[in-house]
Amino acid sequence: MLTTPAYAVADAKSPLAPFTLQRREPGPKEVLVDILYCGVCHSDIHQARGEWGSSIFPMVPGHEIVGRVAQVGPQVSRWKIGDTVGVGCFVDSCRQCASCRAGEEQYCDFGMSGTYNSYERNPEDRRFDKTRPTYGGYSTRITVDEAYAVRIPESIPLDRAAPLLCAGITTYSPLKHFGVKAGDQVAVVGLGGLGHMAVKIAAAMGAHVTVLSSSQSKRADALALGAQDFASTRDGGVFKTHALKFDYIIDTVSAEHDYNAYLELLKIDGTMVLLGIPEVPAPVAAGVLIRKRRRLAGSMIGGIRETQEMLDFCAAHGVASDIELIGIDQVNEAYERMLKADVRYRFVIDIASLREAG
Amino acid sequence: MLTTPAYAVADAKSPLAPFTLQRREPGPKEVLVDILYCGVCHSDIHQARGEWGSSIFPMVPGHEIVGRVAQVGPQVSRWKIGDTVGVGCFVDSCRQCASCRAGEEQYCDFGMSGTYNSYERNPEDRRFDKTRPTYGGYSTRITVDEAYAVRIPESIPLDRAAPLLCAGITTYSPLKHFGVKAGDQVAVVGLGGLGHMAVKIAAAMGAHVTVLSSSQSKRADALALGAQDFASTRDGGVFKTHALKFDYIIDTVSAEHDYNAYLELLKIDGTMVLLGIPEVPAPVAAGVLIRKRRRLAGSMIGGIRETQEMLDFCAAHGVASDIELIGIDQVNEAYERMLKADVRYRFVIDIASLREAG
Repeated sequence: MLTTPAYAVADAKSPLAPFTLQRREPGPKEVLVDILYCGVCHSDIHQARGEWGSSIFPMVPGHEIVGRVAQVGPQVSRWKIGDTVGVGCFVDSCRQCASCRAGEEQYCDFGMSGTYNSYERNPEDRRFDKTRPTYGGYSTRITVDEAYAVRIPESIPLDRAAPLLCAGITTYSPLKHFGVKAGDQVAVVGLGGLGHMAVKIAAAMGAHVTVLSSSQSKRADALALGAQDFASTRDGGVFKTHALKFDYIIDTVSAEHDYNAYLELLKIDGTMVLLGIPEVPAPVAAGVLIRKRRRLAGSMIGGIRETQEMLDFCAAHGVASDIELIGIDQVNEAYERMLKADVRYRFVIDIASLREAG
Repeated sequence: MLTTPAYAVADAKSPLAPFTLQRREPGPKEVLVDILYCGVCHSDIHQARGEWGSSIFPMVPGHEIVGRVAQVGPQVSRWKIGDTVGVGCFVDSCRQCASCRAGEEQYCDFGMSGTYNSYERNPEDRRFDKTRPTYGGYSTRITVDEAYAVRIPESIPLDRAAPLLCAGITTYSPLKHFGVKAGDQVAVVGLGGLGHMAVKIAAAMGAHVTVLSSSQSKRADALALGAQDFASTRDGGVFKTHALKFDYIIDTVSAEHDYNAYLELLKIDGTMVLLGIPEVPAPVAAGVLIRKRRRLAGSMIGGIRETQEMLDFCAAHGVASDIELIGIDQVNEAYERMLKADVRYRFVIDIASLREAG
């Protein structure tokens, strides 16, 4: 086993603190990755604080991982030592169900193995091994199956690539899956970690992007990120002036909000895709969907193949995340700032700071 | 003007009673239709009783009309005297917006002219003429633009064809639009006028149909209509045994019900289409959509071209509505029975009874 420095929460009430975990030596088809950068996702906070239930403690969060291959198992064919790879929200899945076979491992019938706060699988039956919890990217290295890593294109700065592994793919996947194309009118609701990636990627796809945000102060940012238009949702008039305007709405907001008001902004046959999960289910008026044959959909991350496609797309279009690079000792403060939406637009931990501290 | 016997409600509190209206002589592109049969749709009751607001009184309901062309305007090219035609939920639209040009007049940007409880349009600007309310099929004849009538195929019994003009197209359109194909698992929620047509049409499309109904007594009917399976939703177990089973759910229920419970029955990428409008918006849990990339959609009737396609499809597959034929003097009683769901599955008025009474 490989003794590995990390940061963990001991329980739902504790802050992140230094922790030591054991990574396994790579198996025949596994690689050992030296982690360089790890993004800080809002879901890290939810899970670290036990807000989604079923948290496994101690917990080492982090699923926006960029690193370098340090060691390869004897049967590894995809990677060699020194390759720059990414690891996203999951590190394994059943590999046998229709979704896994279709390369959409995030919808695995038996559940994916999350990169942290989840379990490794038994090699024999591919079921969860509840004696082996997974630990995430707030650590200096990770051992992962070669099939669950992706290649980071050279042209993307490594620190700015990290958030693509979750925020990037979570927004790219629905834009691609639901068919956004050049000239489409796309609204992005909420300009946080997910929202800022949705703007960049939709704009790179050639869509006409409008940011709908409750925070008037983000207008300049929205336009700088590639949006053509901005509207403050505090100004109720926006729901009249933008009625029937959009082909797609990408809704990244987890706070309570009125789905019907946004659905009315969709054209005929328009689709609103939910990425955020408000605590309380929101009322949907059937008539709002029926009158214009609208769709309300959801989407969750993306598969390995599509994650690679997204990275290549970002490289081709010069897209990367806007980040604030922090040391590991700043991560608790970063959590607090994120809760105040005080980050533009993703904190990324420089794991060198953890290596030096360790 | 053509003095025409009809049945109307004088106001939201009154029963249907004999009424006389004036139909116009057909204009250059219009036809006069002698009405033979008119179906009784649940929405007739809602509108006659002012339950949807904005009811126009006196009101002559009826938008499932089958009749014979009695007179044609000089420029009419589609119809000749004696042709058997249908008139559905609308008799006009703006004819200029993208939806009208696409043959989806039901989504007209300026609103369709409903067959009743709506207004005729000015020929010049195609806007509503609020001095000329429309009157529906509880009458012996109707004057309609030739482009807003459809041909009833010979093989469909005329009385059993009438409900196809609303219940038929309202279920055919989403099944077609959202891509139901042979072998798909389709659930139909609610076995009323719409539901029984959804079962017949989905089965004719080759789908494997399951009826989900609160009324255990409809099991035999469901199977006789073409469903392969039936499940009573009063038995809560159904939501476990049928989890992740369906590609599509056609939800015809207007009473309050839990959308999330039904959405959980959808497979990955499954679509639930709402056709009924409960009085109170129903909560939707974002997570239920997100976890399996599910879609909640709505659909409203269908366009003229698609209505013709549906009629031809029904003729080709031997599909017609199951009806109870009534005289016009039974229509108030029929309303009461419909409110108790005591009809299998559509009342159709034999308009000969109105002609004789008149």
